[in-house]
Amino acid sequence: MKAEENVLEAVFNPRGMAVIGASPSDFATLSQMKTKIREHLYLVNPKYTEVLGRKCHSSILDVEAPVDYASIAVSAAVLPKILEECIEKGVKVAQIFTAGFSETGLPERIAREEELKKIARGRIRLIGPNCFGVYCPKAGLAIVPESPLEEGHIGVVAQSGSFAESFSYFAMTKNLRFSKVVSYGNAADLDGADFLDYLTDDPDTHIIAFYVEGTRNAPRLCRALSRAAGQKPVVAIKGGMTEQGMRAAASHTASLAGAPDIWRGFFKQCGVLQVENFDEMVNVLIARENSPLPAGRSMALISNSGGFSVIQTDLCHQAGIAVPRFAAATVEALRALVPAAGTGIGNPLDAWPIYYNIKPEGNIADIIRIVAADPGIDMLVFQFDQFRYLRRVMGRDVDAHMRRLRELMVEGLSRAKADAQKPVLVTVSLDPYLEDEEDRRHNLLLKNAFAAAGLPVYASLEQTVKAAASLCRWAEIGRRA
Amino acid sequence: MKAEENVLEAVFNPRGMAVIGASPSDFATLSQMKTKIREHLYLVNPKYTEVLGRKCHSSILDVEAPVDYASIAVSAAVLPKILEECIEKGVKVAQIFTAGFSETGLPERIAREEELKKIARGRIRLIGPNCFGVYCPKAGLAIVPESPLEEGHIGVVAQSGSFAESFSYFAMTKNLRFSKVVSYGNAADLDGADFLDYLTDDPDTHIIAFYVEGTRNAPRLCRALSRAAGQKPVVAIKGGMTEQGMRAAASHTASLAGAPDIWRGFFKQCGVLQVENFDEMVNVLIARENSPLPAGRSMALISNSGGFSVIQTDLCHQAGIAVPRFAAATVEALRALVPAAGTGIGNPLDAWPIYYNIKPEGNIADIIRIVAADPGIDMLVFQFDQFRYLRRVMGRDVDAHMRRLRELMVEGLSRAKADAQKPVLVTVSLDPYLEDEEDRRHNLLLKNAFAAAGLPVYASLEQTVKAAASLCRWAEIGRRA
Repeated sequence: MKAEENVLEAVFNPRGMAVIGASPSDFATLSQMKTKIREHLYLVNPKYTEVLGRKCHSSILDVEAPVDYASIAVSAAVLPKILEECIEKGVKVAQIFTAGFSETGLPERIAREEELKKIARGRIRLIGPNCFGVYCPKAGLAIVPESPLEEGHIGVVAQSGSFAESFSYFAMTKNLRFSKVVSYGNAADLDGADFLDYLTDDPDTHIIAFYVEGTRNAPRLCRALSRAAGQKPVVAIKGGMTEQGMRAAASHTASLAGAPDIWRGFFKQCGVLQVENFDEMVNVLIARENSPLPAGRSMALISNSGGFSVIQTDLCHQAGIAVPRFAAATVEALRALVPAAGTGIGNPLDAWPIYYNIKPEGNIADIIRIVAADPGIDMLVFQFDQFRYLRRVMGRDVDAHMRRLRELMVEGLSRAKADAQKPVLVTVSLDPYLEDEEDRRHNLLLKNAFAAAGLPVYASLEQTVKAAASLCRWAEIGRRA
Repeated sequence: MKAEENVLEAVFNPRGMAVIGASPSDFATLSQMKTKIREHLYLVNPKYTEVLGRKCHSSILDVEAPVDYASIAVSAAVLPKILEECIEKGVKVAQIFTAGFSETGLPERIAREEELKKIARGRIRLIGPNCFGVYCPKAGLAIVPESPLEEGHIGVVAQSGSFAESFSYFAMTKNLRFSKVVSYGNAADLDGADFLDYLTDDPDTHIIAFYVEGTRNAPRLCRALSRAAGQKPVVAIKGGMTEQGMRAAASHTASLAGAPDIWRGFFKQCGVLQVENFDEMVNVLIARENSPLPAGRSMALISNSGGFSVIQTDLCHQAGIAVPRFAAATVEALRALVPAAGTGIGNPLDAWPIYYNIKPEGNIADIIRIVAADPGIDMLVFQFDQFRYLRRVMGRDVDAHMRRLRELMVEGLSRAKADAQKPVLVTVSLDPYLEDEEDRRHNLLLKNAFAAAGLPVYASLEQTVKAAASLCRWAEIGRRA
């Protein structure tokens, strides 16, 4: 399939884009006005002559430049007329934000969606209705005003608008960057398979994330997913894996949900990594973007608390991850650098004094190097939860201490990652509700330093271990294939 | 057992307390200097004549006032001498912060601990070694300088110092207040059972939380736990429930860990709720402090996103919680107030427009009332994740809108809790790493408003659902008994 033949080129690389139903407060207008697409952006709404300082047309037919792609947020009642105008104008793809169709389960609204399909058939392609549209930083398309402008390599296809919105909003916070993010809602016309096919052939997309509730054409979706996973790593969520979840999915996007076991088998057969929820998907994407795949399931854990390292070891075990004994040489090397009192020299390494030593020799970077080089270890998890302790002991000197400690930790972990060619995952523990601004600030500085060094960072060890376990499953899928 | 006979009265109600090894930067000195115990606090360290503006004695024998309780952080080598001095002074209980004993697994250090026990036997009681001590706001004892001074009704007994420290540090953030928190480390003398017995008889303690890695006297611990759970709700964690976790526990507190199944059966037999980790324990404590127990496992879920409500329903189902259909009357009442387009009128209720309506009639408080009154529902989970959407649409008006919406949500949920006598749990979604300060500030304002109204609040729906599931298990333990 050549890219220029694909109708989605009209979306991801449009000569012109129109926002129909533009207003000073709708997402689509606000979002595109902040990106480079504004040079080829045309606002349409008969209620305004101007929106955000920009000319507003009363109809798309008044726009003189070519328009390939239209984002439509008007009431369901006028939608047929608007769609006819788009067709007359030569618009190739219309994305319909408007909801109130088959997802309501109400017969007259199901009929409304059928009417849209009838108008469109053979004349224009539809994304939606009941969807948030497209985020593509390369083209300057955005779903929300907060999406980063930088391009990345993750492609997302999501039946849920909230999923696409969440990826776009949290991109900065999660250190994820995207090639394309698509929300496709009720899938009255273009379906998940169409977007998957496009991303499979898209050289800017290196990893694909897929959220699906159901499909009207399972064989087609199966072919698309299978082809995608044959060429790129694919991670997917099937929303509605339980009976009650299926009922919720039906009222969300009117999907024929299908039995959970069929979906599970289907993903497995295609070589797709299935995860259960948004956080799991985000967390494994963070790891996959920044890590080699692990060769096995043995983890080294550098912790800073005895009690927590005990239950964290339990947690790993329950997630199918081993925390094996270190080799004798590793223990010996660690014993030379870590005092025995109040510590546990082993795996997990419970060694609070290493956070106090910022001398040039025998510091935390050396400890990390020793642990990462252990031959029995496939991945390293490093946890930082120590700021409040350091502050109590050091008072005002804690700022300078943290600056040097941060450098040592970043250096040690970056080198460990490069030398050992193993996944190195980091936890910078941070409670969301913490209102101690000094504690919070230091943890965010550290998190951002790790992220800037290309290390995957998580706010809790539980999330880190789940990401590691997902990464192991992904590696195993690859080895099986 | 009469309280006045118990040696722990010397800890929780001491005539005088000494910090031996006091310095301007050790936790014990810093912590006690901020509380009312400072009036009966005596600092001891031959290196100083003054610490933090307070006289420092070179030996406890120089203190003229009576001292019942001493907190000791000196090197292991001088500990025997210090202990002898405490005995001579008439100290009843010594808490030993110093580590480097049996937990190291090194023969000479195990012998050191035996020496301490020999010195103490029949002459003084010991807490520790290798422990953080005691937090008791009523007596003015603190483990960390950040512990709140207000008293509460949760009693904690933790073999791990980090556990006790985390409860003390996060008390403010988690809206939890404590009667007593004890860290007892290696348990060379006083063991978990001693503290459990004390808290069982303590009228200020209404709920008991217990973290244990192992014991040298299982029958005694079993009797203590069983007696405690017969009188008060008890929640417990056994650290080291897996083989690798047991190994970690051995190097942490030198505990004889015991087989996981034995512990599981033991907790069950005693009527103790077993949970797996710190977060689970904190979350169920938040719920139990603020909620009646649920009559069953049916949950109503008020969400604000279609896609997320689908996987959240899956999540509930996987946690053993039903999200059943609402009664027809409930759906009818909701349909009268919530537009159909882009929403899901049912359970889960996916109804974003309710966050935009702050009119006196038919607002979010009415929606909450209708849902909570559904006769098939045992508990209500309300989720807020809407601020960024509101801000995009409302711009500057969002502050005023949020103020009124906050009032309506607090009013609606408080009334629902009072009228329905069902657990009402709240999620105010907040990503720990979010650096959008306006979004963060509004979510924290809302979280604090809910907490002030006595509603349990969690930062993610996953945590909320886990807390609800733990609460259901606790209710079932009660019904079985």
